[in-house]
Amino acid sequence: MIFELTILGSNSATPSFGRHQTAQLLNINEKFYLIDCGEGTQVRLKYYKKKFSRISHIFISHLHGDHYFGLPGLLSTMHLQGRTEELHLFAPAGLREILLILLKHSATTLNYPLHFHETNPEKPEQIFENKHIIVNSIPLQHGIPCTGFYFKEKPKTRKIIKEKLTDEFTLQEIIDLKHGKDVEINGKILRNEDFTIKKRQRSFAFCSDTSYQEGIIDQIRDVSLLYHETTFMKNYAEKALRTGHSTTHQAAQIAQKANAERLIIGHYSSRYREIQPLLQEAREIFPVTELAIEGKSFSVSEIEPS
Amino acid sequence: MIFELTILGSNSATPSFGRHQTAQLLNINEKFYLIDCGEGTQVRLKYYKKKFSRISHIFISHLHGDHYFGLPGLLSTMHLQGRTEELHLFAPAGLREILLILLKHSATTLNYPLHFHETNPEKPEQIFENKHIIVNSIPLQHGIPCTGFYFKEKPKTRKIIKEKLTDEFTLQEIIDLKHGKDVEINGKILRNEDFTIKKRQRSFAFCSDTSYQEGIIDQIRDVSLLYHETTFMKNYAEKALRTGHSTTHQAAQIAQKANAERLIIGHYSSRYREIQPLLQEAREIFPVTELAIEGKSFSVSEIEPS
Repeated sequence: MIFELTILGSNSATPSFGRHQTAQLLNINEKFYLIDCGEGTQVRLKYYKKKFSRISHIFISHLHGDHYFGLPGLLSTMHLQGRTEELHLFAPAGLREILLILLKHSATTLNYPLHFHETNPEKPEQIFENKHIIVNSIPLQHGIPCTGFYFKEKPKTRKIIKEKLTDEFTLQEIIDLKHGKDVEINGKILRNEDFTIKKRQRSFAFCSDTSYQEGIIDQIRDVSLLYHETTFMKNYAEKALRTGHSTTHQAAQIAQKANAERLIIGHYSSRYREIQPLLQEAREIFPVTELAIEGKSFSVSEIEPS
Repeated sequence: MIFELTILGSNSATPSFGRHQTAQLLNINEKFYLIDCGEGTQVRLKYYKKKFSRISHIFISHLHGDHYFGLPGLLSTMHLQGRTEELHLFAPAGLREILLILLKHSATTLNYPLHFHETNPEKPEQIFENKHIIVNSIPLQHGIPCTGFYFKEKPKTRKIIKEKLTDEFTLQEIIDLKHGKDVEINGKILRNEDFTIKKRQRSFAFCSDTSYQEGIIDQIRDVSLLYHETTFMKNYAEKALRTGHSTTHQAAQIAQKANAERLIIGHYSSRYREIQPLLQEAREIFPVTELAIEGKSFSVSEIEPS
């Protein structure tokens, strides 16, 4: 089952140096979860050949324009393309008011049902669940109501090593193996671990925008893939705190303390034409860091890396 | 004095085939007038190296998203860039409500004064005047309140043919020449037309979006440069009428009946990958037609074409 994050926008505040504002697409088993939606996101979705029809859930962290000014255009295009499937929006309360006013003044009634789900910036809440995943909000500190989002796969059955199966196994025995049980065939106990592999509960945490918050560490502990904003380099720690943002070192410290497997940094300030120095700084503390670069995808394997 | 229109977006409704939604920039004497502001306009302004600081007046025809979803992002970037000069917005009444709600939810107070001027979709009104130009609104028919904009230079003094001047001319005689008078030097009458050239009152009419409206013809008669939307080819006349749009032939008829000097067509439906056929159709009726193509500029000479 695929679990892959694609970066659609990596810059903060304004588009600069060919970088656009925040937007990310999480593909879990070919269902697309859009996270934040900076201006022009619909153009980049098209450019990277991501079908709008696969998006049924959109998560908006907060109501600074660089995180959602692309949403009205995307919703409008979905409408004009004849979408009829329902769409779920998870966002701070104000977004509902904003979108209803935009629709009112354009005299538009959307072809598809649009469901608003208000996020709570005060405490973590489970906001979504389907067969495969659970999504929880992550309270962040950013001057206006802001949450991150924590996507986690549900517990899974074990993966059968097909090459080891013979015709002797009954369907029930295969089901037992998947559920971690040993089985007995012809009086011989077959140990589960010789016939199956554990599948991981993969997870992705999206933390943007926020000042350094140790309070989120417990919630995202052992996360497979952590995106944490790094608007500034470490010498701007004071400005970061004042504006509700984080530095490279702070993002890396969160990754380290949460025992994240991998860290992606982004939301670069427009003061940085070159972003490699941010990567170098983050890696001083957390070596397994990568840059959010538009069009780049990050996959998480279903099997524990050996 | 420069009088030049640059196309920033040429498509209708949604971005398609590399074309973006409506936005145009009119440069009159190095003052920039931004007309409509589809999503991503700020990116294309940057791409074409148009300085935001030269824009002090923005004209929005109507509140369908493809004509203004780029405005919040542009205003926000101007704010973040530290703009302090006032900005004037000419738009239907609802835009004020929309922008105030966006600002409220982002807890933003703009660094610069933003003045709203409500346009009247019912009758033409003078909405702006400075030393060089007058701008009038043009009532259009489009399902929701919608106006075009008619920019016209004020009457000008005549241009002196410098090569013909000698030291004999006094300052007063030069001023008289500029004002179209003959002058007498050494008992000899010098005819004004031998020493001066008439400077034109150039004009630009922006007509988008609208069904075919003969009512606008008187207002834009003899316009130097006419932009008229052509969402559809001529075989879609019924659909054009129903959706408040125009066909190639209809735009060309307006240009012909208004005795326009030049017609630019645009706001192409996303059903058209190729837009040359639209040009061919318009030219069947009005030969001096050109396509709105992003990045392309159209200049109007100050001197009457011979």
